[in-house]
Parts: sequence; structure tokens; C-alpha cells
Amino acid sequence: MKDDTPMPEIEKCMESAWRAFHVYKKYSLRERAHFMRTIAAELEKRSELLIATAAAETHLPIERLQSELKRTTFQLTSYADACERGDWLEARVDTADSNRMPAKPDLRKMQVPLGPVVVFGASNFPFAYSTAGGDTACALAAGCPVVVKGHPAHIKTSELAAEAILAAAKACHMPDGIFAHIRGASFEVGKALVMHPHTKAVGFTGSFQGGKQLFDWAHQRKEPIPVFAEMGSINPVFLLPEKMKESAAEVAKQYGASITLNVGQFCTNPGLLIGIDNEDLNIFIKVLSKEISGVLPEPMLHQGICENFYNKRSNALSQSHVELLAVSQTSPKENEGYPTLAATSAEAFINNPILHEEVFGPYSLIVKCRNIAEMMAVARCLEGQLTSTLIATDNDVINNEELVSQIQNLCGRFILNGVPTGVEVCLAMQHGGPFPATTDSRFTSVGADGIKRFTRPVAFQNWPNHLLPDALKDENPLGIWRTVNNTFTRDKIISD
Amino acid sequence: MKDDTPMPEIEKCMESAWRAFHVYKKYSLRERAHFMRTIAAELEKRSELLIATAAAETHLPIERLQSELKRTTFQLTSYADACERGDWLEARVDTADSNRMPAKPDLRKMQVPLGPVVVFGASNFPFAYSTAGGDTACALAAGCPVVVKGHPAHIKTSELAAEAILAAAKACHMPDGIFAHIRGASFEVGKALVMHPHTKAVGFTGSFQGGKQLFDWAHQRKEPIPVFAEMGSINPVFLLPEKMKESAAEVAKQYGASITLNVGQFCTNPGLLIGIDNEDLNIFIKVLSKEISGVLPEPMLHQGICENFYNKRSNALSQSHVELLAVSQTSPKENEGYPTLAATSAEAFINNPILHEEVFGPYSLIVKCRNIAEMMAVARCLEGQLTSTLIATDNDVINNEELVSQIQNLCGRFILNGVPTGVEVCLAMQHGGPFPATTDSRFTSVGADGIKRFTRPVAFQNWPNHLLPDALKDENPLGIWRTVNNTFTRDKIISD
Repeated sequence: MKDDTPMPEIEKCMESAWRAFHVYKKYSLRERAHFMRTIAAELEKRSELLIATAAAETHLPIERLQSELKRTTFQLTSYADACERGDWLEARVDTADSNRMPAKPDLRKMQVPLGPVVVFGASNFPFAYSTAGGDTACALAAGCPVVVKGHPAHIKTSELAAEAILAAAKACHMPDGIFAHIRGASFEVGKALVMHPHTKAVGFTGSFQGGKQLFDWAHQRKEPIPVFAEMGSINPVFLLPEKMKESAAEVAKQYGASITLNVGQFCTNPGLLIGIDNEDLNIFIKVLSKEISGVLPEPMLHQGICENFYNKRSNALSQSHVELLAVSQTSPKENEGYPTLAATSAEAFINNPILHEEVFGPYSLIVKCRNIAEMMAVARCLEGQLTSTLIATDNDVINNEELVSQIQNLCGRFILNGVPTGVEVCLAMQHGGPFPATTDSRFTSVGADGIKRFTRPVAFQNWPNHLLPDALKDENPLGIWRTVNNTFTRDKIISD
Repeated sequence: MKDDTPMPEIEKCMESAWRAFHVYKKYSLRERAHFMRTIAAELEKRSELLIATAAAETHLPIERLQSELKRTTFQLTSYADACERGDWLEARVDTADSNRMPAKPDLRKMQVPLGPVVVFGASNFPFAYSTAGGDTACALAAGCPVVVKGHPAHIKTSELAAEAILAAAKACHMPDGIFAHIRGASFEVGKALVMHPHTKAVGFTGSFQGGKQLFDWAHQRKEPIPVFAEMGSINPVFLLPEKMKESAAEVAKQYGASITLNVGQFCTNPGLLIGIDNEDLNIFIKVLSKEISGVLPEPMLHQGICENFYNKRSNALSQSHVELLAVSQTSPKENEGYPTLAATSAEAFINNPILHEEVFGPYSLIVKCRNIAEMMAVARCLEGQLTSTLIATDNDVINNEELVSQIQNLCGRFILNGVPTGVEVCLAMQHGGPFPATTDSRFTSVGADGIKRFTRPVAFQNWPNHLLPDALKDENPLGIWRTVNNTFTRDKIISD
């Protein structure tokens, strides 16, 4: 089996996607939604085979894969609902005023699709962030054809999902080129896809190195294009003193599970725990160490990820002033992750950027601060994050306003007294934080607001009602919410 | 008078802006709006001096400067209204569901400010796109401090506007550093501002060279930041055959005025007129040539712009298959623009990228196509534009669906039977098109949606009501529109 789709075939795919774009963008919201729901149904039809194939390719447990596939079809159907509701079109109407001097023209604006979108699937989510995952669902809702580069670590799963999408495309009479699946184990394939003039946006989930490379290519193009790369994150957790006094042991138990969930292979894995060095933190450390030592090593997604985990882990543990606190009491076998807890001082952490890097896997570092001021210094030295978490009482929050504000400023999602793992699929979700967590903190890759990543606004000036897109017509045939002369409404517009 | 603000002072400004950010972001929408309205009032107080100073620096007629200043205060007050309405916060609430397995957390999302914004003013709009212009108004509404690099061509006007902003800041008890004005005639000042780690976004209006340079710097930073650069545009106008048969002469008269308005110094100046080579186009050319020859040369904004106009104009006119059709019958004096109309064939245009470049000033090029297919080929070879215009009957639109779709895809604003000059300040305005018209087609620099350029979403997970920002509290104390469990509403949320 070849590892790479040949370049002439990639060229054909992109040409075909470009032609499909000009057809698909005219499809109604209902037709797009129907297509997305059909993809979900086609995935469900193939669920047994998809799960068996993914299990063989990724070492992820069956139960996790079952729930991930459910999440994937839920994304497709819930984004289909959002697509039809049409709020994301951000329709705005400002009606004409011929009495004003100079006369005010009629202006009506809505979001339109950008063009073909290239999606790079994630290794850690073979369904939900891959071929038929969130990026693909959002792009199709927006009106964009999709070209997926399947992840080499689960290429068979990817091809099966592609089959489901193509079956749905056929059943829904979609234009040729609406979707294509590309194989690319080599660097050149990714580069060709990002640099192709017909590519108008890129979605990516993976490492910092990978995402940053796509981002740089996209900016070297004659016509730069947006890249939505969700990259690494260490998801700092700030343990505030009053809450720790109340429930250090409980929090430690909760975090033992979160750190090691699915061998720590989540972009929202809590990799940094920042506390005040006192008796309560000692209790926390004692309980968490016990939890970690009781977790069994499990196989990681693939060899590359496992090697990377051990390299990063050793590098972190070999830094000065880093103390190993606990490992699983069971030795890991080949390809298995090794649940690990370490600690360091705030001073050592602040002065050593290596300790700020993600160790992708079941690893977390405790940072011991002498006081709140040192905790603030840690917060100040951190880069952008997908999530930040506060473990705090109301008093902790109220009495540390500046610290709380600083921590909020780091992240896209700000959790109070919970764990960052578990990314709910809903409109209020923000999955995307300041660089380097993602390349564009202004957008989310989870939740229906992710549709907007693949759109831009166009204003229509002075068009007669019958020639306008339905979303902007006086009679509001789609029944969507619009802003008419600065007021939100679903009403028809009554012309003078 | 020194031309450049010294580097240590720039460093101080940015430090001060960073501190101000952490204070100002907590100000209520009402406080921000009050500040913006006070700036408008302070500008009005100084209107006579501002207009006299700008007239001396820019050669723009008094009447134009008066209306531009009105536009500037209107922007400030209307964006202040939008700031208070709070629609731009895009508040979304998904309430908890403890009965679901696993339990669904409470998630609430809203837009928060990015941080200090650096604004580079435009030479052609000393008020509306400069120091107290649209970018500054949007950033202040969003909750971001602003550092303006005054345009060297109207630095005194810029400093006067800065005085008005600082007077308003004092009157409204704004934090130190909320606004600063920097002088920079040299390259280094702009670079230092864009590269400064406290700068979190950039607004720019000007040339392609200038905007692209800022964009490249912003991406070379350790933490890349968004750049909203509005650059050149030739604003193509497509003259469709039925409409031309009906009213070629009328359209020509309208365009004679649009091409030469304010010596053609608008980013929406129609620089390209594409028609079918027939008797109707001959009438159009005859009437337009007469119009152009009757327009008097007028002084351009400054010597650099004037020199650039003549260089670009000569270069365009010296290309093979370019024919000079008409110039003003009055010879221009020093520093005056020379109203000029030229023509070429579709074939020559398609094959010569020099003819696609903007000639900033009173110049327009007619492209003669043999038929609609050639018009389509011209549309296909064009780059991104701020505006495209169709001169067309309903039949023209309906019978040329593919062409119309292609033209729409080029631009941010799509005008039917009008002129592109005149950029209305309203919510439905889109002033921003695909690259190279702007660096980010997903946002507008005119209209209150421009506020969103300087914001990003943050989701709050599991926060108790009393600790949430007002915009997300159950009782909706701001009375804003929100999306609660996928439904638009201004209602309170009733907890279970």
C-alpha cells in the first residue's frame, strides 16, 4: 500500500474541490444539514468496523472509541441543527434612507464560505478530531468542500470514515469534489495541500511543531490563508489556599483520575499543578502520589507518541530542582505510558522554559510557591493555554482578583473547581486559547461557533429584494434571527 | 521638532498600556461608552483648529474635512451605542445538566479584549481612519488600550486628536496608559511597536507594501498577533450588456464623478471598468471621456502620494496595448493629480499583472471584452478586492449566475448599480475583502462589527452566578441579547 497520494492526484482533488465550492456554496442550509446528518448515519452504519479498525490502529479502549464515535455523530447532527438555525450567518440589515443627505443606501451583510478547507486529523482522536470530525463538520456547514489528510497512525480508520462521507455525498447528490481523502506520510503532501492556491483555510489538531509549520507555510503563500491549529497546552491548575485547607485530599483524588485518563493523551490534560507550599499541599501531594502509584500503565496511541513521552519526561525529570514524587507501582511494558508525578519550586519553574513544555502523556508537575506573589509570578511567565483551572473558594476568588484576572487572560476556557479534561460539545464551549495553544485564539474548534472559522462576511449594497440571498430577503424566508437597523429580530422587514 | 519618539519612551508607553489593560478591561460597557462619547465631544470642541490644521497638512478641501470630522465623531458615538448594546459580546450560556451521564457542566462564553492595540493611521483620512478614527474607537469599545503611530504626513492633526483623547481620558478617570501617541517617520518605530510583546493586535490603513510588512513582522513574533491591514484595491466595476444598452451615458456620468472624487484618493475608488466591446461601450467611453476631460486637476494629499500617482500612471500607460482615452483638459500644476482614463483589451489585461495594480489617484482603466466569457476570464484573474460592482439589469444578473458568483467571491462589499466610493458607517457594512485588499477578510474595519477584531472568546466553566461577569449572570443585569441553550433571548435564566 502506498503511503502518499501522488501529486497529480492531489492536484486533481484540489481542482475538483474548487469546482465543487462554486456549486455547494449555493446549497441551502437545509441541504447542507441533511448531508451532515446523512454522514452521521453512514458512520453509525459502519460503527462496528470503524471501532474495531480504530482499536487495532490506536490502542484506545473499545469503550472510549464507542463514546468518541457517538461524540462524532453528535457533532455532525448538532452542527447540522446549528447550520439550519442560521445564527452563524450573522445576518445584518440596514435599510435605505433616501431622505438623508447624502442618501443612505440599503446594506445587508451575511457570512459566506471561504472555499476549500484542508483538514489534518489528530492522532489522539481518530474519530472526533479526524476525517469526519469537528473541522470537517464545521467546514461542510459553512459551505466549504473538505480535503482531509488522513493521519498515518490510523489511516485505515480514516479511509473508512472517508467512505462513509462519500457514501453520504452520493446519497445527497453532492457535487463531485465535495470531499476527498489524501494519504500523506511525508512532509511534501502536507505542504502541497497548504500551499495550493485553491485551499482557502486549514484545520489542524496536533503538535506545536506540526501546527506552527502549517501556519508558517500558510503565511508564505502569495495569498495568506487562515490556519486553525490546535497545538499543545499544559493546562495549569492553580490550587488556592482556602480551598486546599478545606479539601486537599478530595481534589487530589479527582486529579489522579484526570491526569491519567486515557494515558494522559488529551490536549486538555492537566500538566501543571501550582500550589502554596504548606501542610495542605503536602496532604495533596501525599494523596495524589498514592493515586498515581495505583494507576496501571496502559498502551499509548502509537510508538512515536510513546517515545516522545519518555523523551520529554526524562528531559523534564533531569532538570535541576525537579523531584520525582511518584510513578505507577507497576512497571510499564513496551509502548505503555508510565503514570508520573514530579515537583519543582516556583523559582526553578520560572527560570527554566523546558519545564513549561507539554509532556504529552500521563505526567504532571507540581510547582511549589512560597506565597500568592510567587503564584502570580508563575502565572505571569506562562504562555497561552487551552484551559486554566482555579481550585478555589469564593473567598479565594474574591481576595485574589489580580491573580484570577491574570490566569483568565492565559486561556480560552476557565474552569472553577473541576478538571480540564472533558470538552463539552455545545455553543458556549471555547476550545482554543492564546498562542501557542492555538494559532488563532479568536475562534473555537469545538461547538457550533467553530463554523465561523470557515466564513467571511459579504455586504450587499443596493440589491433588489428578489435578487438577494434568502437570508437577507425582506420576508425572512429562513426565519432566522437577524439584526435589522441595530435590533435583533426574526420579523419580516416592511418596506416603506 | 523630532520626527521619532525615542525607543525608551515607546517602551514606557507599552508598559503603561499593558498595566492599563488590566484595569480598563474591568470597566463596564457604560463606562467605556461614556469615554468614547467624551472623546467625540473633545474633538468637537477643537473642530475649528483640527480642520484648519488638517487642511494645511493634507490639501483636502475644508468641506470634505468638515464631513470627515463629523463621520469620526459619529463613529465614536455609534460604536459607543453598540458597545453598550453588548451584542458584540456574543454571550452564550449552556446550563448544567446533572442528570446526564456524564454530568453536563455549566458553560458560559463571552468576548474579552485582546490587550493593547497599535494603530497606524491612514494618510488619506486624517480623522476617520487615523488617531481618533475607527480602529481606535473599536479597540476602546472592546476594552483595549490604544497606542497610535501618527501619520507623518499629518502629524500635527494627529497630535491635536491625541490631545482630545487624553483630555477625555482625564475627564473620565481612565487609567494611565489607556492611550498614547507615538511619532515615527522611520521604519524602526513601526517595527518596535508591532514586535513589542505587550502589543496584542494591529490596525492599519494604507499601502500594500506597508500593510504586508506589518503582517510579516506580526507573524515573525514569538507570539504571532492578528493584523488588520486595509491595503490597496482597484474595485472592479462590471458593466453588463442589457444595462449598458439602457443607460450607458447615465452610468458614465455617475462614474466620471466617482473616479475623480477627492482626486481619486479613496481606497474604494473604481480603478477598473470592465465592459463588452460594442456600440454601448463606445457611448460609455465617449461620455466618460468628456466627463474626465472636464474635471479640474486638484492638489493631492502630499508630495509622496502625488509622485507615486504619476509613477504608477506612467508605468500603466506605457504597457503595450494600453490606450490613453482622456485626461483633464486643464494641465495639472505641481502636486496636482491629473484625471486620466485609459483602455486595454481583456487579453492584454489578463496577461499583464502590472495592469492589476492600484494607481492611487484619479485614474481608471477600461477593459474591453469580446464577450461574457472573456469578462469571466477577467473576473477569474483578479485578486481580492474591498468592493466589486455590477452595473446590470435583473436579467443581466439572472442570466449570468456564474459570473455574478465569481465577482461576489472577489470582494467584501458587492454593489449593484451604484458606485463603490462612499463607505456607510453602519452594522451591515463590510469594509474588508480577501487578500490583498486586506490581511483578514473575516473582519470589517468600518461599522460596529469592527469591535470584534480586538476580542476573543473565553468560556467560564462551573462558576457560581455571583462570581461570573455581569454579561453572563443568570439575571442578565446588562439586559443584553444572549444565546441560552441555543435560543436567542434577553430573558433571565431561571435556575432549577
